[in-house]
Amino acid sequence: MNIRIGQGVDFHQLVTGRDLWLGGVLIPHTKGALGHSDADVLLHAICDALLGAAALGDIGKHFPDTSAEFKGIDSKILLKRTAELISAKGYRVGNVDATLCLEAPKIKPYVQQMQQTIAAILNITIDDVSIKATTTEKLGFVGREEGVVAYAVALIQTV
Amino acid sequence: MNIRIGQGVDFHQLVTGRDLWLGGVLIPHTKGALGHSDADVLLHAICDALLGAAALGDIGKHFPDTSAEFKGIDSKILLKRTAELISAKGYRVGNVDATLCLEAPKIKPYVQQMQQTIAAILNITIDDVSIKATTTEKLGFVGREEGVVAYAVALIQTV
Amino acid sequence: MNIRIGQGVDFHQLVTGRDLWLGGVLIPHTKGALGHSDADVLLHAICDALLGAAALGDIGKHFPDTSAEFKGIDSKILLKRTAELISAKGYRVGNVDATLCLEAPKIKPYVQQMQQTIAAILNITIDDVSIKATTTEKLGFVGREEGVVAYAVALIQTV
Ligand SMILES: [Zn+2]
Ligand SMILES: [Zn+2]
Ligand SMILES: [Zn+2]
Repeated sequence: MNIRIGQGVDFHQLVTGRDLWLGGVLIPHTKGALGHSDADVLLHAICDALLGAAALGDIGKHFPDTSAEFKGIDSKILLKRTAELISAKGYRVGNVDATLCLEAPKIKPYVQQMQQTIAAILNITIDDVSIKATTTEKLGFVGREEGVVAYAVALIQTV
Repeated sequence: MNIRIGQGVDFHQLVTGRDLWLGGVLIPHTKGALGHSDADVLLHAICDALLGAAALGDIGKHFPDTSAEFKGIDSKILLKRTAELISAKGYRVGNVDATLCLEAPKIKPYVQQMQQTIAAILNITIDDVSIKATTTEKLGFVGREEGVVAYAVALIQTV
Repeated sequence: MNIRIGQGVDFHQLVTGRDLWLGGVLIPHTKGALGHSDADVLLHAICDALLGAAALGDIGKHFPDTSAEFKGIDSKILLKRTAELISAKGYRVGNVDATLCLEAPKIKPYVQQMQQTIAAILNITIDDVSIKATTTEKLGFVGREEGVVAYAVALIQTV
């Protein structure tokens, strides 16, 4: 079979005094995501889905959070490197679908910009990138606005 | 590639005084799921997986929980509209697989009825709809019976 | 469509006095996973992804945790039986991708052995099995080291 599947899930704390980057877009909000990089939970989940589909390990293997190289890094650069790794192994991306779980803010106004950003990096069309969002209905650490979670899946195929 | 992937995840609180609809089936239980619609977490996750696969946005875009039109609505209607959206964009459903995370009750006696209900709406066979269930081993808000979570994935393809 | 998708998610408590089996490998750690079987959360999620893809029900249906037959059982046996069920229904496994969510220990040193173990049981190559890992950044029951979660997806196709 020349079609392969991948999935990713990522978590970050929400804290004051940090920017909130989601899907490569800076979102105005009272809190931001804590992490070694820019902590873009959505791009990280997508990176992991792509790396997993290609059996290339995970985001922690390629971009360790103990490395000074990745301190504060724009996760769009990590996604670009991921795309290069996929391509170097002889795969191209089919489509990507993801869900952001966060209580606030509403990300709907930013979804199209996220799609454009991700599609450009992965060299696919906007229609091959889907970004969805949901609250957790006040449940758990997402519901308490202590954190944000993203889930992603991807199909890739041999070129 | 004419095959596309989608995923969905949905959350609802469990409270007394509400019905528990899961997979289009009314389940006898001491608690029900809270939400603007009938709060069928499983159908919502499947809707999102299908919408995501087709890059049609998410369930909140099509069926906003601020709209009087969807107050108390049977989620089978939402799934039917989702199927129509998929079809109108030129896709048909391959298969759907989902997992319900809930501490109680056991949903095994209802799985076949859920499959039949969903398959009929999506115009696929029962064998193309899979419903699984797990507890969270008493962990977290699902373990405390405060909420229910559903995960779903789907493959669709161009007709 | 002769390609089918499946997903799985599994949860276990982490407690002292139990072994920590992950991906068929015994991991040295101060805590282990609680469960009726060896509580290998990763293999269980993969079993469920494969069973779901084939619409064969879930792990609880085939290997009930109320059965003495499965008390303390090596989950590699459950994965092997799952592989036989898939095969008997006329499917072969394409690829599997999974993520372990746990705060500690680091599982990177064991990933290759997990891949080898799983690939051998499923009769696929190591490159068709991907194991990723992430912490939850101290959030929730995984962050408090009270539990471990695994997510998996799989593609299967008709032989
Ligand atoms: Zn991250
Ligand atoms: Zn819902
Ligand atoms: Zn288990």
